[in-house]
Amino acid sequence: MVGQKTRRLTEVASPVTLADIARLAGVSPVTVSRAINTPSLVKPKTLEAIERVIARTGYVPNLLAGGLASRRTRLVAAIVPSVSSTIFAEAIEGLNAELVAAGYQLLLGLSGYDHKREMELTRAILARRPDGIILTGITHLKETRAMLSGAGLPVVEIWDSTPSPLDTAVGFSHYDVGALVAEHLMAKGYSRYAQIGANDPRAIQRRDGFIKRLSGVAKVELPDVEMNSPSTFSDGRRALSQLLGRGSGSLAVFGSSDVVAHGALTEAIARGCRVPQDVAIIGFGDFDFAPHTYPPLTTVRIDRRMIGTKAAQSILRKISGETVEPMIEIDFQIVARQSA
Amino acid sequence: MVGQKTRRLTEVASPVTLADIARLAGVSPVTVSRAINTPSLVKPKTLEAIERVIARTGYVPNLLAGGLASRRTRLVAAIVPSVSSTIFAEAIEGLNAELVAAGYQLLLGLSGYDHKREMELTRAILARRPDGIILTGITHLKETRAMLSGAGLPVVEIWDSTPSPLDTAVGFSHYDVGALVAEHLMAKGYSRYAQIGANDPRAIQRRDGFIKRLSGVAKVELPDVEMNSPSTFSDGRRALSQLLGRGSGSLAVFGSSDVVAHGALTEAIARGCRVPQDVAIIGFGDFDFAPHTYPPLTTVRIDRRMIGTKAAQSILRKISGETVEPMIEIDFQIVARQSA
Repeated sequence: MVGQKTRRLTEVASPVTLADIARLAGVSPVTVSRAINTPSLVKPKTLEAIERVIARTGYVPNLLAGGLASRRTRLVAAIVPSVSSTIFAEAIEGLNAELVAAGYQLLLGLSGYDHKREMELTRAILARRPDGIILTGITHLKETRAMLSGAGLPVVEIWDSTPSPLDTAVGFSHYDVGALVAEHLMAKGYSRYAQIGANDPRAIQRRDGFIKRLSGVAKVELPDVEMNSPSTFSDGRRALSQLLGRGSGSLAVFGSSDVVAHGALTEAIARGCRVPQDVAIIGFGDFDFAPHTYPPLTTVRIDRRMIGTKAAQSILRKISGETVEPMIEIDFQIVARQSA
Repeated sequence: MVGQKTRRLTEVASPVTLADIARLAGVSPVTVSRAINTPSLVKPKTLEAIERVIARTGYVPNLLAGGLASRRTRLVAAIVPSVSSTIFAEAIEGLNAELVAAGYQLLLGLSGYDHKREMELTRAILARRPDGIILTGITHLKETRAMLSGAGLPVVEIWDSTPSPLDTAVGFSHYDVGALVAEHLMAKGYSRYAQIGANDPRAIQRRDGFIKRLSGVAKVELPDVEMNSPSTFSDGRRALSQLLGRGSGSLAVFGSSDVVAHGALTEAIARGCRVPQDVAIIGFGDFDFAPHTYPPLTTVRIDRRMIGTKAAQSILRKISGETVEPMIEIDFQIVARQSA
């Protein structure tokens, strides 16, 4: 199946053109164009000759040229913040699998949690007229929203919940996740509560839900450690170290991801704290490693892959003209292990 | 910066066209086209009026239409097997950061370790004429190679080493990695040697280097456990369980990734084996969790991010017409911790 290497491509060889194909097949360029666009109008023998030349030369018709512009592209684009965090990777794999099974190609852009980059990527992507586009989250610059409104194509926002999506959203309420975590920890009764978190819109929502649910019961402490998104293992260690230095009494901590929670857990163990008696830690994401930390990490599980699957199904249904409900909610639940 | 939500997009609204812009700005379509392509030829006041309408409507010029076809697209595409494995994520982040800094957009495709999918993605991507394309590995279908030869654009292959890249390659010899791991383990003297691995071309090269370097010293055992790429934590547990059931004597194991090695390590600990005296385990990748396993995992470190950075730099240099050396080697080294 996998052939031998060919000669090295010359330093930027000149591309094979439609005219080259015509010359090599001994037909007119119009005939080649017809063979590509309306093969039924070309004699079988001529068609076969042209196809042989196309296969041999590796010619790819230019979708940027006018002739094919109106065709469905069978391309769906998705913009996610990052792929280096586990959190988005499984959703992307679910999205990809579903699109590929339907004969579509997925193209990804990485925004780096930056709304301006999301806008630039949206422009670059829309200029290539995909059949649909998937964005992460529900906060976008007004320029991005204007372009999406103007584009007239199916849009799916993933990873958040809203009563008013741009088009369709697939996700869950991050605020409600924070509130659920607060309830889990409150039920066990700690003297101090803290949150260690990243600064993206969804992590902030989880923090806000946590703080609000605890209000009246306890004031939630926030470490004074600068953290970007995605937050890291060492952010978690540093933040817990600071929290423990600030006071005494049992401490319950909500980490904005399993990675930062694992860092906090490691710091607690390294300092000889009893987990979960002295320090309780709960993460977010139920990453692969969560059952294997010492002690195993309590966390919030989301069916990440399902977000990708549902997003793909929604886009495909919209492309084929069906109506899709505006908000598709994805379940989440606490996975109680030993750390909290 | 981030505005309020707009009304929900209608179910596939009709897209804003160049004619709409002309009508709303009270000028001819030719003037709008000129404002986009050669703004210096349009009166400042007219230009301003057109730009206002474009911003308000979110109009994005169609790069698939003929007029803009010859422009540089400032798009670079990359095809990687997967993003759910840490192994590619950092290279992608490095690639993205470097391209964005140069004003380019990265679009990603996922091949799922499948050469046919790589070919289909290559076709879909080339049809949109990016300025350059990055592929993973050095084995491709002949159709893929033909298309790349025909496209006349810069190509960079990453994650492997070869004297004859298609154009330029950035990576390292997986065979040499396997040989180095064999030397590390042989120096400590074990009675049995085994490899637990995935089935992609690069993992197979690492296995072959390991087997070859040990030949004459020991026959390398391979567990009879079916494994795809990327291999998983539970693959590692199952495989080590089988190897331990097959015989006695101290056992040294090379896992094709840190994930599978971590699984093997956990199985060894769960069975009460002494690590590294009874069972030694070495991984590949130096993933984030490797220093934190119990006991800490010995592994092979690659500067993954550097592969992405160098790939981006090579593509950018090629796009601007410079010559780039055919093979850019990336260093690797053993990080000796407690597991081997």
